[in-house]
Amino acid sequence: MKPILYGDLRSGNCYKVALLASLLEIDFELSFVDVMKGEARSEQFSKINDFQKVPAWQDSNGFLAESNAILNYLAEIHESKLLPADPWLKAQVLKWQFWEQYVHEPAVAVARFICLYQKKPENRLDELKVCQQKSHAALLKLEQHLASHSFLVDNQFSIADISLFAYTHVAEEGEISLDPFPKIQDWLSRVESTSGFKSMAQLKSSLT
Amino acid sequence: MKPILYGDLRSGNCYKVALLASLLEIDFELSFVDVMKGEARSEQFSKINDFQKVPAWQDSNGFLAESNAILNYLAEIHESKLLPADPWLKAQVLKWQFWEQYVHEPAVAVARFICLYQKKPENRLDELKVCQQKSHAALLKLEQHLASHSFLVDNQFSIADISLFAYTHVAEEGEISLDPFPKIQDWLSRVESTSGFKSMAQLKSSLT
Repeated sequence: MKPILYGDLRSGNCYKVALLASLLEIDFELSFVDVMKGEARSEQFSKINDFQKVPAWQDSNGFLAESNAILNYLAEIHESKLLPADPWLKAQVLKWQFWEQYVHEPAVAVARFICLYQKKPENRLDELKVCQQKSHAALLKLEQHLASHSFLVDNQFSIADISLFAYTHVAEEGEISLDPFPKIQDWLSRVESTSGFKSMAQLKSSLT
Repeated sequence: MKPILYGDLRSGNCYKVALLASLLEIDFELSFVDVMKGEARSEQFSKINDFQKVPAWQDSNGFLAESNAILNYLAEIHESKLLPADPWLKAQVLKWQFWEQYVHEPAVAVARFICLYQKKPENRLDELKVCQQKSHAALLKLEQHLASHSFLVDNQFSIADISLFAYTHVAEEGEISLDPFPKIQDWLSRVESTSGFKSMAQLKSSLT
């Protein structure tokens, strides 16, 4: 079977997987799941993916949820250099990915969701402000690291960069300015210049 | 050098690492970091661990933050069966660990922190209630999975179980009842019965 990515390419978490799959030249399909209509929690989708989340990846082995787990899986089975073979470097990749999901994503992605998807409803404005403050702190940490590193791990482009790129490059859609972070801006450009890179819009038009 | 675990064994995230290191019979030291005194963000600690978080693991390679990254690293370099070799099963381990950090821990561990560490200050009672509700939903998901699985991945004890055990077994310290979750209770007992298992208290007395 041709692998299927369930999700919505506006979501950074889904984009991560689509970008890596594209870089690995995997022939896959996109199956659109509209989270705004609650489709990830629908009975039909829950039956195939008990985590009720997108992205989900389906191949001959079954279903896999959690964007960063999917990145590690695809990089490993394709023996990609985007996941270093050395255990210490691999651990650094995971360190950044767990940090992304615990610190960065709940701030940056939620701010963006409130602005872009929900159009800033009155009852979430306080939360938006908190997310923007936390985003600034997370981006500051990223900026400090990138002041002395060209990419997150071992100065080589890896799936850790894909994980952090996904929401950082659209942070301004959450009304989080990247102006104070020149090193991040340079790194975003470096990621966008890697061979085979595709933007959200490019993947959307090629997959749908 | 003898590896050092920086942290506080009351923290589930630190306990995860201490438990695995003990199961792997690694000869390591515990260096106590008092998060209640802000020691993880002190200038001295930040210098050695720029993630300003505990647990942190130090060995001849350097410093590593993020509990689940440390678990994967230690299991891999010790070629432990607690991390399956098969890429699909390994991906399932990561799926549970990312879910733990995104969904389970921010609910269960934060409720416990507010109750146990902070003694329920008035200004966090609303947040406590939200965390308890989210904990219940997360535990329900775990319960459903454990209704048909003896351990989280491939019915074998793995580092995914260690990751989820850490805060689940002390959920009641966050005033989250485990009474509605008999399958979780059975699984906690199975984890506690694995060969070489050590409780938080046992590790604390042997390491300090």
